[in-house]
Amino acid sequence: MATENGVTPSTTTAPGWARRPDTALEQTVLERIDRWWRAANYLSVGQIYLLANPLLTTPLDRDDVKPRLLGHWGTTPGLNFLYAHMNRVISERDVDAIYITGPGHGGPGLVANSYLEGTYTETYSDVTQDAEGMRRLFRQFSFPGGIPSHVAPETPGSIHEGGELGYALSHAYGAAFDNPDLLVLAVVGDGEAETGPLATSWHSNKFVNPATDGVVLPVLHLNGYKIANPTVLARIGQDELHDLMRGYGHTPYEFVAGFDDEDRSSIHRRYAALLDEVLDEIVAIKERAAAGDTSRPMWPMIIFRTPKGWTCPEIIDGKKAEDSWRAHQVPLANARDTPEHLQVLADWLGSYRAEELFDADGRLDADVASLAPRGERRMSASPHANGGLLLRDLRLPDFREFAVDVPAPGASIAESTKVLGQWLTEVIRRNPDSFRIFGPDETASNRLQAVFAETDKVWNADVVPGADTDEHLSPEGRVVEMLSEHQCQGWLEGYLLTGRHGLFNCYEAFIHIVDSMLNQHAKWLKVTREIPWRRPIGSLNYLLSSHVWRQDHNGFSHQDPGFIDHVVNKKPEVVRVYLPADANTLLSTYDHCLRSRDYVNVVVAGKQPAPQFLTMDEAVAHCTRGLGIWEWAGTESDGEAPDVVLACAGDVPTVETLAAADLLRQHVPDLKVRVVNVVDLMRLMDSTEHPHGLTDSDFDGIFTTDRPVIFAYHGYPWLIHRLTYRRTNHGNLHVRGYKEEGTTTTPFDMVMLNDLDRYKLVIDTIDRVPGLAARYAGLRQRMEDKRIEARQYTRLHGEDLPEVADWVWPDDGDRAGSADAGGAPTTSRRRGAASATASTGGDNE
Amino acid sequence: MATENGVTPSTTTAPGWARRPDTALEQTVLERIDRWWRAANYLSVGQIYLLANPLLTTPLDRDDVKPRLLGHWGTTPGLNFLYAHMNRVISERDVDAIYITGPGHGGPGLVANSYLEGTYTETYSDVTQDAEGMRRLFRQFSFPGGIPSHVAPETPGSIHEGGELGYALSHAYGAAFDNPDLLVLAVVGDGEAETGPLATSWHSNKFVNPATDGVVLPVLHLNGYKIANPTVLARIGQDELHDLMRGYGHTPYEFVAGFDDEDRSSIHRRYAALLDEVLDEIVAIKERAAAGDTSRPMWPMIIFRTPKGWTCPEIIDGKKAEDSWRAHQVPLANARDTPEHLQVLADWLGSYRAEELFDADGRLDADVASLAPRGERRMSASPHANGGLLLRDLRLPDFREFAVDVPAPGASIAESTKVLGQWLTEVIRRNPDSFRIFGPDETASNRLQAVFAETDKVWNADVVPGADTDEHLSPEGRVVEMLSEHQCQGWLEGYLLTGRHGLFNCYEAFIHIVDSMLNQHAKWLKVTREIPWRRPIGSLNYLLSSHVWRQDHNGFSHQDPGFIDHVVNKKPEVVRVYLPADANTLLSTYDHCLRSRDYVNVVVAGKQPAPQFLTMDEAVAHCTRGLGIWEWAGTESDGEAPDVVLACAGDVPTVETLAAADLLRQHVPDLKVRVVNVVDLMRLMDSTEHPHGLTDSDFDGIFTTDRPVIFAYHGYPWLIHRLTYRRTNHGNLHVRGYKEEGTTTTPFDMVMLNDLDRYKLVIDTIDRVPGLAARYAGLRQRMEDKRIEARQYTRLHGEDLPEVADWVWPDDGDRAGSADAGGAPTTSRRRGAASATASTGGDNE
Ligand SMILES: Cc1ncc(C[n+]2csc(CCOP(=O)(O)OP(=O)(O)O)c2C)c(N)n1
Ligand SMILES: Cc1ncc(C[n+]2csc(CCOP(=O)(O)OP(=O)(O)O)c2C)c(N)n1
Ligand SMILES: [Mg+2]
Ligand SMILES: [Mg+2]
Repeated sequence: MATENGVTPSTTTAPGWARRPDTALEQTVLERIDRWWRAANYLSVGQIYLLANPLLTTPLDRDDVKPRLLGHWGTTPGLNFLYAHMNRVISERDVDAIYITGPGHGGPGLVANSYLEGTYTETYSDVTQDAEGMRRLFRQFSFPGGIPSHVAPETPGSIHEGGELGYALSHAYGAAFDNPDLLVLAVVGDGEAETGPLATSWHSNKFVNPATDGVVLPVLHLNGYKIANPTVLARIGQDELHDLMRGYGHTPYEFVAGFDDEDRSSIHRRYAALLDEVLDEIVAIKERAAAGDTSRPMWPMIIFRTPKGWTCPEIIDGKKAEDSWRAHQVPLANARDTPEHLQVLADWLGSYRAEELFDADGRLDADVASLAPRGERRMSASPHANGGLLLRDLRLPDFREFAVDVPAPGASIAESTKVLGQWLTEVIRRNPDSFRIFGPDETASNRLQAVFAETDKVWNADVVPGADTDEHLSPEGRVVEMLSEHQCQGWLEGYLLTGRHGLFNCYEAFIHIVDSMLNQHAKWLKVTREIPWRRPIGSLNYLLSSHVWRQDHNGFSHQDPGFIDHVVNKKPEVVRVYLPADANTLLSTYDHCLRSRDYVNVVVAGKQPAPQFLTMDEAVAHCTRGLGIWEWAGTESDGEAPDVVLACAGDVPTVETLAAADLLRQHVPDLKVRVVNVVDLMRLMDSTEHPHGLTDSDFDGIFTTDRPVIFAYHGYPWLIHRLTYRRTNHGNLHVRGYKEEGTTTTPFDMVMLNDLDRYKLVIDTIDRVPGLAARYAGLRQRMEDKRIEARQYTRLHGEDLPEVADWVWPDDGDRAGSADAGGAPTTSRRRGAASATASTGGDNE
Repeated sequence: MATENGVTPSTTTAPGWARRPDTALEQTVLERIDRWWRAANYLSVGQIYLLANPLLTTPLDRDDVKPRLLGHWGTTPGLNFLYAHMNRVISERDVDAIYITGPGHGGPGLVANSYLEGTYTETYSDVTQDAEGMRRLFRQFSFPGGIPSHVAPETPGSIHEGGELGYALSHAYGAAFDNPDLLVLAVVGDGEAETGPLATSWHSNKFVNPATDGVVLPVLHLNGYKIANPTVLARIGQDELHDLMRGYGHTPYEFVAGFDDEDRSSIHRRYAALLDEVLDEIVAIKERAAAGDTSRPMWPMIIFRTPKGWTCPEIIDGKKAEDSWRAHQVPLANARDTPEHLQVLADWLGSYRAEELFDADGRLDADVASLAPRGERRMSASPHANGGLLLRDLRLPDFREFAVDVPAPGASIAESTKVLGQWLTEVIRRNPDSFRIFGPDETASNRLQAVFAETDKVWNADVVPGADTDEHLSPEGRVVEMLSEHQCQGWLEGYLLTGRHGLFNCYEAFIHIVDSMLNQHAKWLKVTREIPWRRPIGSLNYLLSSHVWRQDHNGFSHQDPGFIDHVVNKKPEVVRVYLPADANTLLSTYDHCLRSRDYVNVVVAGKQPAPQFLTMDEAVAHCTRGLGIWEWAGTESDGEAPDVVLACAGDVPTVETLAAADLLRQHVPDLKVRVVNVVDLMRLMDSTEHPHGLTDSDFDGIFTTDRPVIFAYHGYPWLIHRLTYRRTNHGNLHVRGYKEEGTTTTPFDMVMLNDLDRYKLVIDTIDRVPGLAARYAGLRQRMEDKRIEARQYTRLHGEDLPEVADWVWPDDGDRAGSADAGGAPTTSRRRGAASATASTGGDNE
């Protein structure tokens, strides 16, 4: 039998991807599904409303009802319906599936299903499958000391809280990557579908490989309403909606129910048939892919058009409740205030006929229970949804072998991210199915292009045969590039949450696009760390390049180092920030990041040619310490306190600080300068506030308790104050950084615009070290003049002053020489060291 | 003549919306368009490459070429083509149009067109329309001291920098709202189209009223590539792409050119015809709308499939350049390195035959120049693109008339945002076409629902006839609600940039979704303030409600007060942050915001019933000061220094602080307490750092130089340290705030989780005021016990301890009483004051 593509399907399909035996669905099964649905709905309403009397063994009393009703009903019955039907097909076909709940406010539903499956009790032993357990189940929901209202980390089977809407499909695809046998049911709220991230995430289907990735089955939960409005997708013509889905690359299957008197078994029969058709279609696609068909399939998706709040009272207080936005949250908002309202609730609960579903002791009827799949096939028990269970360490190549040769500090030039790219190439080679790089069309621009020697960019849309423009595109690529920071973040999160590893490379400024997503992920990590059964997952690693100081092509809109500020507001246990100043330090840092668990690691590193300071051994020691005194750069000697500390964090500030140290050594030879470089920013915090924080005595030792500290920092200067405000020497801390000045100009003009340049750092030193101001007024003026000269030079030549651009750290010979010369200005005499700021680097190099 | 909808079009169409006279396009016009295009392309290449010799009057020399080549060519020829053709139709039809450039990196193109139109010289008189001016034009581009590479504020005719991609359509629709005669051409990059915000923004067409809004004509610039990859939309079938556009509610018109040898005039003829067809279709829609047809039209859009880098060298160094991603930035990246490369550039420049377009003095040929529309019809000279020119003050009702009655501090209860809603209702009434409220489906949830007495939510998708669920939906609504924070922000920005007013109401946590958009807008404002010809525009006003402390329904994912931290990194001149503690303060604050210009105003205010403290007169004085001592709440007296300062900012922290002050007054009656409330957070900054900042002497007076300050703050506590680290008394500042602890629980449990509660504030006072610790160890323990009791109570009852929830500020009688009682605990005796924390408030109330 040949398919329409002329490909003969292999007879051995992937496990789990089998067609359903061609037997009619028995009525008993449909009834079982309906009873499961009723049970889940009952348990959902119970969670929202009841404190006690879970089986209504006595007439519902005012005191049985919670005093504060907190939760969301509207989306829940639809979620429960979809869950019940999934259970049938999972058992019948032995599918490995997880369930992603876009409208995560449907928490009661997912908790209810997990309880029906037994997983809830296995996870939380006091919530037993009996009347007392049910009482606890109800009471704890959205209750102080209990569980959250959403599909939170506490919910078995969840990798997606769905509090902030928009990421259901990105997470689903992230979970499906490299899990060829996994089916991810992804329910998308029709309100959620209006968000930007969700609207573009439908296109994820161009980035999956049907042969080696799992399958995402999107269900558009078209219940017509959001909080207080109809939804756009419910109020365009059916044709338009189907066009939209086809335009997104999907074949839509529409299911409509709940708006008339159709009987339940007919509804279930229709949906079961549709689901079987859809799954058979998926099996066919999988078969074709297994047989070598590499064309992009039109994946099926389901439009699930059903009433919001389905099965709740139709009318409450004279207003439409079911099938309206009024059902979004708690449709009967006051259940205790009048006997009438209490009766509405009693009738509603009664409508599910719980007595047919649970025995007098609250035990679930065996026939209903039998709908649940076995063991880990239960979606609430899937190890994919507790990814740490599946996590394997990466096989990491020894980063030391990728070291840049640094014969002396500053003696060689390298592009940090390019060097990292060489190591990452080997990481990809050794971990062909558990490591991916994500980026919004900038992986080459950020100079990681070495990886394309080993892998491609995943691409399952059309390629132009023979075109040399379609470089490194294939369905097998390990690099995932789409021009959507939201997608990069969401995919990576989904990939990590299901037990794999990866990194997200991005322009520094535009990483703010995912600020809110970072919040949600950091919150997830914070909570999971407190949940014993949640196992640690791979850290979320950022590589931010094309950073604020070197956006030569793009200017002000591309200059923003504030993501670090955003990240450090999250729980200290979860966040780490690194500013490696050269390539070897970056290598050592990233090796650490890829080994770490449950963190958000933010690494900012330049892509431009820049001087290299540390040998690999020095870099490892430096990264292990997190910061350190660069003795070779300072002029202090053992036994004496320094006169000034020049501190720096970030590659560009480090160069400016060293250039300032060089100037000071020439011009103020008797000044005792200490140079401190910070790679792990969290070291600045107090040890009681951050696990990486320095103790006060360590901090005081390094930064002194009474000497001026001139701190050249990569980002907004206030952050350094915020991290150090409790330190003894804080009053002497003077921070230079990005103060929101910028445009398209030269690299040195950029640092001058923000007073972070070497000349300004020398001036700061003169101004702050007691006694220098009067004695070095001449030098101070020469430094001001240098700034003017440097600026003028850019205006005339469009380039930086050669003595600035070509500055290199003097070698020891120079050092001795310039010291001997008693402070007379010397230009650096090192040969061979290339100019660090000459290259500007195209975006697409 | 009846249209297909059976509506007879009115004979008087809106000005500008006229069909083209039915005459064939003359060949000379097509040639003029081509020559304009060539001129614009020549000027674009010149800007990217040339320092001198703009007319190539001598053979191109190495030194004529810029040493650093910074800019983006790839998108530019397409932008130029579209511009040239727009000019014809603008003149012929007298259309009022602006041009929004999604791929804002096409800066050279928009600058070139503005120069050809004469606007550039009118704006920057030294860039004359002659050889010397052209030299300056070229040299300044992306050059130090010159202009940015993007369509920046410096570019005449721009309201959209396009540095961060994704907002072209949102801005375009924002501009079109309430501008019935405006045509907004919105070019969308095909890479840009992959972003989330752009992907959902196509649906904007459901939120415009064809009768009273302008028209957005989207052009999908399908040049096939982004930085280093093909684009998704260029690599799906044409059918799929058309389905997608139809699904978005558009009729696609596809134009393909540049891939074969078709001659220029044929290309121009085809595009001109297509553009006329599209515009006639728009006119027809406008006519139908004018005649009363309220159905949603399928608006036309253009798919513009042309080569990236069109007209640049086909092959450079053996690799495809034109029609490839390699043309994205500077296709010939090294023009000075070899004579061969220099020749490539010379040939490329020569291909435009500039000598036919400019005379020997560099003056534009009159025939070419005649393509430009007249005066303000030139898109580069449109006042809409310098919205301040059109800005009219809002007619604001007197907010004092909406005051809440506050007979004594704390004596009444109100929902702050609900009160604001009443005033906003009147604002809408008085400004029916220049003020809008935007929100992601939360306007009612944030309790602004009073406005629906006056207006509707704009909605041009289907309504269900007679359904009581379709409340307040109509094409005329002044409230714009779509579940996309990106759209809300983008629309509002577009609306403001074209000279109108508005506000964005949002859940506090989810405003982070637009962090990056805020960055871009704040940068825009910062730069425009330095550009004399840019006139001030209405401020971007946020109303953040459903804030971190009262997300009772939603829990941890909805709890994040960090937007303030994000905003204060922007330029101080541009940002303002307000935390009004009650309704009258909120009214006074918002009145100020709606009068202000060129700011970003962030206002955080609660929606829950809460005690009211200030009469309107007091509120006005308080807001004018920005902060103040609440003498009635403290126990200090004139002439004596306080023992402790209890400071607070935000409504919930204010209540906790007052409750703590109440406890202290009862239990430590001889303690001299000062209570300070901060409404304008920027007052805390140094006067040299922020225009609102307090001088040191003012600050020292209020916060003292040596007494402990216990600061209860709405957000992350570190921010207060960051704002005040230079103040004398900083070492004594102790800040409580949100430290990223939360879940679904009671309001008081939330503040306890974060150590911001009244009992903790009392403990902090005991711990920090010298001498109290030993004397009040018993009270301290009772406070600890209270916390335990309060927590236990929530676990048992699901509600807050009545003495907490029902606490009200004691009136003077109580005050005297409790003081007389010598510190014995008394419960407050005020009657009538309702409980402030009882209501939890559904999202959809
Ligand atoms: C990004 C974001 N904005 C706003 C909200 C507030 N919110 C919570 S639920 C909801 C409506 C969701 O509607 P829909 O996706 O249709 O879900 P359902 O109808 O199934 O409840 C909104 C706007 C949110 N959770 N996330
Ligand atoms: C949100 C965002 N992410 C990344 C970038 C970096 N970037 C600049 S241009 C570009 C490609 C744009 O492609 P397209 O929209 O097709 O424009 P065109 O081909 O017309 O140049 C990218 C990814 C950006 N500007 N904005
Ligand atoms: Mg919905
Ligand atoms: Mg493109």
